[in-house]
This record gives sequence, structure tokens and C-alpha cells, in this order.
Amino acid sequence: MKTLLIFATTLLLGLHMAQAQTKEPMQTFDPHFAHTVYFWLKNPDNAAERAAFEASLRTFLERSAYAKTKFIGTPPQASREVVDGSFTYSLIVTFASAEDQQRYQDEVPHQKFVEEAAHLWEKVIVYDSTGI
Amino acid sequence: MKTLLIFATTLLLGLHMAQAQTKEPMQTFDPHFAHTVYFWLKNPDNAAERAAFEASLRTFLERSAYAKTKFIGTPPQASREVVDGSFTYSLIVTFASAEDQQRYQDEVPHQKFVEEAAHLWEKVIVYDSTGI
Repeated sequence: MKTLLIFATTLLLGLHMAQAQTKEPMQTFDPHFAHTVYFWLKNPDNAAERAAFEASLRTFLERSAYAKTKFIGTPPQASREVVDGSFTYSLIVTFASAEDQQRYQDEVPHQKFVEEAAHLWEKVIVYDSTGI
Repeated sequence: MKTLLIFATTLLLGLHMAQAQTKEPMQTFDPHFAHTVYFWLKNPDNAAERAAFEASLRTFLERSAYAKTKFIGTPPQASREVVDGSFTYSLIVTFASAEDQQRYQDEVPHQKFVEEAAHLWEKVIVYDSTGI
């Protein structure tokens, strides 16, 4: 019985660790409208500014009623020569329609994010795409 | 009975049309590695060159053993001022890992696409991101 208990505990701990390692769950990607944004922070090495930017962006995405894919990324360390790895953060968001993307732009959480975080970046590039 | 048959036929036709309108099925987005590419064709108004580019890109994506999200887009007509809508095609592909992205770069279908289509574009920008 004791062996069984140890076995069960080990199994549960193992499962918990496996879950903790999978920090990124799969997301849904809606090909009707993809909105990608690249941010260059003024001080990309400033940990406090990065934390503030990330917190503001995450909060806004969580509260958006229209964003489907909600991806925040950073450039990987190993990058090929043809890749522009100079940005600080990337954002990939998808929508069911161009109209939903406009509603997202107008949402209060989005406006709050811009208010809170715009002073942290020096450059932004946005690319919008509709699936073919 | 006849009324019921007409009703059922109308319903089926309606469902079929609704399905046909949903040309873009939902896709899976793996936040471990997102690879986005923007292509500027030399002759973006040349229909034959666009068709050749699209066919080559689609064939390669379908054959890739590693690409998860397989999105091909074009800039929407109505675009806000802060959006760079000058590109001809966008590509958003995701992978389970950075290693899978490298395997995709090395795949025969990818090399064939570059061979077939590289002469059609004048500029490419690539951004790679790992989810945070």
C-alpha cells in the first residue's frame, strides 16, 4: 500500500511538472484576418520596462472580446542572416473579420494598453493580412 | 411530403452555400515558434506571376512535414495609416520548436519553392518569434 502511494505521488508530481513545462498551450488561428505587430522598445535591456510592457499587453489581450489568436513573442537567440531579429516583442492576433479587428482597435482595453505602454517603444510596424 | 422534400432540399442547399462561403477553415497555432514572412513581388499587378507564386507557395506548404499553421495572406484594401500595406503576400507558419523550423528550411519542398519563386520577388522580410 505504501509503495502504491509513493508510486501515485511520483506519477502526480511527474504529471504536474510535465504540465508546468508546457507553458504554451496550442491556440486557434483564424485565417480571415491576421494582425501582426513588431515593437522596438526604447530600452530593450531594461527589465522593469520589459515587465511593464508585457503586463500591459497581456492584460489587454486577455480582456479583448474580439482577439482570437493571442500570441506574444520575442526573437529567438539563434537567427539566420535573412531574419530581422532586431525587434523587442512581436504580437500575432487573428480575428473572424476585418470588422472585428476594427472593434478590437476601438476596445477600451486596447486604448488603455496604448496609453500605458506607448512611451516604452520607439518604433512599431504593423502588417494586416486577409487569408487567400 | 412534397413540401417536406422542398424544405429539406432548401435547407441542404443553404448549408452547402454557407460552407462554400467559409473558404478559410480554422487552423492550429503553435506558440512555440512563429515564422512570418512578407514578400514584395517585382510585378504585383501581373496576374500570371501572382498565380505562379501562389501555386508554388501552396504546394510547398502542403508538402511540408513540419509547418503547423499554414497561412497565406494579402493586405486588406482598407488599411489604417500606421499599417504597412505595401507587401504583396504574407506567410505565417508555426512550429513545435526552433529545431522543426530549421528542418522546414532544409526540406526539399522549401528549397523547390525558393528555386521556383525567388525570381518573382524583389524584397523579403522575415521575423521569427518564440512565445513568451
